Amino acid sequence: MIDLRSDTVTRPSDEMRAAARDADVGDDVYGDDPTVNELEARAAESVGMDDAVFVPSGTMGNQIAARVHTDPGQEALVDVEAHVYKWEVGGFAQLSGLQVRAFDAGSRGVPTPEQVREHAREESLHVAGTGLLCLENTHNARGGVAVSKADIDAAADAAHELGIPVHLDGARLFNACVALDEDPAAMAERVDSVMFCLSKGLGAPVGSILAGSEAFVENAVRVRKQFGGGMRQAGIIAAPGLLALDNVERLADDHENARVLAEGLDAVDGLSAATPDTNIVVVDSEAAGMTADAFVEACESVGVLGGTFGEYHTRFTTNLNVSRADVEHAVELAGDAVESR
Amino acid sequence: MIDLRSDTVTRPSDEMRAAARDADVGDDVYGDDPTVNELEARAAESVGMDDAVFVPSGTMGNQIAARVHTDPGQEALVDVEAHVYKWEVGGFAQLSGLQVRAFDAGSRGVPTPEQVREHAREESLHVAGTGLLCLENTHNARGGVAVSKADIDAAADAAHELGIPVHLDGARLFNACVALDEDPAAMAERVDSVMFCLSKGLGAPVGSILAGSEAFVENAVRVRKQFGGGMRQAGIIAAPGLLALDNVERLADDHENARVLAEGLDAVDGLSAATPDTNIVVVDSEAAGMTADAFVEACESVGVLGGTFGEYHTRFTTNLNVSRADVEHAVELAGDAVESR
Amino acid sequence: MIDLRSDTVTRPSDEMRAAARDADVGDDVYGDDPTVNELEARAAESVGMDDAVFVPSGTMGNQIAARVHTDPGQEALVDVEAHVYKWEVGGFAQLSGLQVRAFDAGSRGVPTPEQVREHAREESLHVAGTGLLCLENTHNARGGVAVSKADIDAAADAAHELGIPVHLDGARLFNACVALDEDPAAMAERVDSVMFCLSKGLGAPVGSILAGSEAFVENAVRVRKQFGGGMRQAGIIAAPGLLALDNVERLADDHENARVLAEGLDAVDGLSAATPDTNIVVVDSEAAGMTADAFVEACESVGVLGGTFGEYHTRFTTNLNVSRADVEHAVELAGDAVESR
Amino acid sequence: MIDLRSDTVTRPSDEMRAAARDADVGDDVYGDDPTVNELEARAAESVGMDDAVFVPSGTMGNQIAARVHTDPGQEALVDVEAHVYKWEVGGFAQLSGLQVRAFDAGSRGVPTPEQVREHAREESLHVAGTGLLCLENTHNARGGVAVSKADIDAAADAAHELGIPVHLDGARLFNACVALDEDPAAMAERVDSVMFCLSKGLGAPVGSILAGSEAFVENAVRVRKQFGGGMRQAGIIAAPGLLALDNVERLADDHENARVLAEGLDAVDGLSAATPDTNIVVVDSEAAGMTADAFVEACESVGVLGGTFGEYHTRFTTNLNVSRADVEHAVELAGDAVESR
Repeated sequence: MIDLRSDTVTRPSDEMRAAARDADVGDDVYGDDPTVNELEARAAESVGMDDAVFVPSGTMGNQIAARVHTDPGQEALVDVEAHVYKWEVGGFAQLSGLQVRAFDAGSRGVPTPEQVREHAREESLHVAGTGLLCLENTHNARGGVAVSKADIDAAADAAHELGIPVHLDGARLFNACVALDEDPAAMAERVDSVMFCLSKGLGAPVGSILAGSEAFVENAVRVRKQFGGGMRQAGIIAAPGLLALDNVERLADDHENARVLAEGLDAVDGLSAATPDTNIVVVDSEAAGMTADAFVEACESVGVLGGTFGEYHTRFTTNLNVSRADVEHAVELAGDAVESR
Repeated sequence: MIDLRSDTVTRPSDEMRAAARDADVGDDVYGDDPTVNELEARAAESVGMDDAVFVPSGTMGNQIAARVHTDPGQEALVDVEAHVYKWEVGGFAQLSGLQVRAFDAGSRGVPTPEQVREHAREESLHVAGTGLLCLENTHNARGGVAVSKADIDAAADAAHELGIPVHLDGARLFNACVALDEDPAAMAERVDSVMFCLSKGLGAPVGSILAGSEAFVENAVRVRKQFGGGMRQAGIIAAPGLLALDNVERLADDHENARVLAEGLDAVDGLSAATPDTNIVVVDSEAAGMTADAFVEACESVGVLGGTFGEYHTRFTTNLNVSRADVEHAVELAGDAVESR
Repeated sequence: MIDLRSDTVTRPSDEMRAAARDADVGDDVYGDDPTVNELEARAAESVGMDDAVFVPSGTMGNQIAARVHTDPGQEALVDVEAHVYKWEVGGFAQLSGLQVRAFDAGSRGVPTPEQVREHAREESLHVAGTGLLCLENTHNARGGVAVSKADIDAAADAAHELGIPVHLDGARLFNACVALDEDPAAMAERVDSVMFCLSKGLGAPVGSILAGSEAFVENAVRVRKQFGGGMRQAGIIAAPGLLALDNVERLADDHENARVLAEGLDAVDGLSAATPDTNIVVVDSEAAGMTADAFVEACESVGVLGGTFGEYHTRFTTNLNVSRADVEHAVELAGDAVESR
Repeated sequence: MIDLRSDTVTRPSDEMRAAARDADVGDDVYGDDPTVNELEARAAESVGMDDAVFVPSGTMGNQIAARVHTDPGQEALVDVEAHVYKWEVGGFAQLSGLQVRAFDAGSRGVPTPEQVREHAREESLHVAGTGLLCLENTHNARGGVAVSKADIDAAADAAHELGIPVHLDGARLFNACVALDEDPAAMAERVDSVMFCLSKGLGAPVGSILAGSEAFVENAVRVRKQFGGGMRQAGIIAAPGLLALDNVERLADDHENARVLAEGLDAVDGLSAATPDTNIVVVDSEAAGMTADAFVEACESVGVLGGTFGEYHTRFTTNLNVSRADVEHAVELAGDAVESR
């Protein structure tokens, strides 16, 4: 099976496994795990923040950020395709009493300053004031779009002018930075908090980082405990996480493989796929008369795994368990599957 | 002053005041207020429901409905211009842990069956399933649009096919019914609960009705207590509410006055106003080079009160304290104000 | 029927009814109701606070106070018999995400400074810090106990030394003040907010007051809107509320009637009743071999209404619809009912 | 340092570390991690439940259980010293809108059937009905008390008779079972869900188990995702967790060490310590004129770590990193520290 369902399926490398075995650990709830402490320090530095906290998942990182930045009865501004809105089980409302104001931020999923100003709402007797702008980079549901620092900065500045804090859902932040040749710290320079995943393309088995100011992280650690994300000898998974921070450059391979995959599939009669910014390839099979369900099933039957991404759209995500040869093979297999249907 | 800010500003008639004085009352928290009981029975019957509960405001009626119909971690489908989303202080999220999925339901604010199906989401590991469709009639922010029974039915049927309950925010339900010559019970035939206001055009000083099945209302009474809406000798305000139910036919006067107002203002150079369905007139002053703020201020200075409704849009709402002569006078005054600016 | 179930069952006087009829009203959501404004001003002054807001029920007043004073994830300190804990449908948890820390504050229901210090908790990684102390006067479930200013002050001072705000549930505050010959403003001098009911012994048909600092009330008005407590021409019920503020002195009659009732019932073989502080009489019927259910039923069959208040305890509450002759008659009837069982 | 602060501080064994390195993993959010699946199956079987879910912490397990069993606006019955009430940051209220009804369940922290019946409340217009009974075994704050199956069963049966589901916070369930020579499946036979920790005495670095019926676990998996507890290649930490399930018998060593520690400290002049049921020793230093703060500090200065557990009480917890020689040495050191103060 060539598994292109997601970059979350990657298996840790031998080095990561050895690091897990050999990790120097302690009770992280007491702040005593040296490996977690080292990871948090390095991770914070990598995105230019004062401090960071290690969390079991990207969802928890985003949800903690919303809880810390806002009060119940406020609104969060998000793109209508944002992960926090589509795929986090309505957490903003339930965990933080936060109303989502979603709008179509365009094909790249990043609001313009005008959109921020248009959708921001001032608190009044009737109106839930805006308490958060949440950005996403790369933007998953928009097809792994790498949003530029200029666009992030412009949206963040517009929010700040209105007194609104900004959180960056950077589950795949390093993919964006590699694709754009941008420093992650520069990318996060104007936002108030940023979450990024050590799993996904960076290859760690478990865990994400939530970074921000010292005061923000102090609150975040407490909310993490309340949400049940405080872990004990977490160095076992933080150690592979530290190696994941060294995996940034190799994301370029995933992007190149995604380009090869997209071009290969686009050449198949009945399929179309735009050249991706990063490691997410979205394929339209409508011209082949195949729904995404049918196409995914056809691919699976020949050994290629992807995921439906709309009625006629399928997502393939390259990752460190997939080689150039694999993607070339996947193109052949998928092409055959479409032609022989 | 000719007060066209809203139909919520109406003052109770002498008959209503006398009814308040003379009301037969008891402790409604014990179910002992005969006037409230009579009002709830008549109100339920008027919209063809099994039972109803008297609440202090339309907002409370809508918020109780959401709480009763849904579980935390679900989504509510609403038009992006819905009152429950724009002007109820984010209550769905805070009071019910309910995520709002808002979309543009078009210029009349009622979703098509296709839109209901498109935006409804099935619960999954990642997805907050749809737990409520909330409709609005007349639709306030769309300009007092009277939505037809056919459109309400179609949207409700589409939701029910997906197992989704439907609440109708009918703050001005009777305006819609009068405008369309439709029976309120027919209008609410396919929805699971309906809220309508006794204040506003019907002229009662305080209070709204939330109606539905017996089981729904039993739950609603309990949630009302929790939200702090249980009142004691509420017959004092229920008595005028009973008279309000006799005020339905006179809403036609408000609509006619609104038509006169709209046509008059539309004839003013620089102003435009579409012919309204009901009692809400929305005036565009952009061609006059006036923002809504400027136009509202100019009107106020000559004795006509309205409210801003967007950057260049102003809302005037006819009501039972405003006569035909008043609206004709208001047209003159507003016209002068624009021309002399 | 002699209705001693509660002082909430009182019917408004002719003067109150006339005041309702004649009230000068406006739309209170716009702040335009002169009668509501006058009531809020007089009510604030009566308890020595800067400002006040009129709410449909005492429950809403208490729940708004909790929401304004605290953040989700904090604790409220309350007596285990407090109304906010026993009889407000778990509102603190659901509406404010507030954990209740209830403890036995003794037979008068007011915590000592030592108890405040013992149960207050400092926020930590594991601990929900204390965000509110909620006092109650008179204390309903403790038998209408009138808590002294000295005790209120001592508890409030202890809380303030720890940085904890204090809310006073004064549903029957004026009963306490009349019983103790204390100025209500002095009684509320050291607390941060106070709620009192215009209904109950003061005889208004509907409504309560929540008072505090200007900033507190500004927030409270907004939360009231969110909870659905914003009403339109509320002057209709505020006008009787104004007269209720003149009803304070007559509470002494209720207290005297309660004393007569308690002494009379205590003299009945098998019944015991302590002399009450205010208008709530708690009768123990265990020695008569009657559960509260049986005793309440027996009383009802002879025309006296009360309410169960524990397995063997029954509550009778004197009120302005009940005369001295009524309570004397009630003693006879209840005595006969017990003896003839 | 002899670290007796908690059994959460234990470091994983070499076998566990090797297991982490060698784990067969997959993406557990997709259900693809064979090691997690194996752990969940074995863990469920060990406590006699149909199914189980792996969670990052005991707190998350307890909080998920509350969310799944209850609706907002209900109450949970707990001992006043319960972990879920004292040390989970008020999560019941904030995450589940659940009011806690805490009462003193006695020195062993397990409610009698009478107490369950006394504190259970039937839902009414005013009352938040009881939605959950939460038991704890061993009971941490009561001093590691091992509650018998008979007591658990009796409390659970009483709750079930009232239609109330029962959750068992078994963070140290296996300590209780070893101390009482009871089968864990028998211990959990009558409860609806049980959480136990793989960390603590069983020695795994990270993670806990929440077990129950298939329907319960299906809901729990979804709530876990919402709370941010869904992890990817969690087999890395599940593999040590599997070995932890083999660590049950050795808990007897911790208990024996705790007995030796308690007897040793009790013999020190000025200290008293009851013989513990399991691995938690609570020492009273009041007779020595030392507060817990002072005693903990004195111990730390001589190389023994414990934690304050009240004004004059200190907790020491034996664990797999502490040998018999260690505890004997700790007794000497602590004794010297007290005598030389």
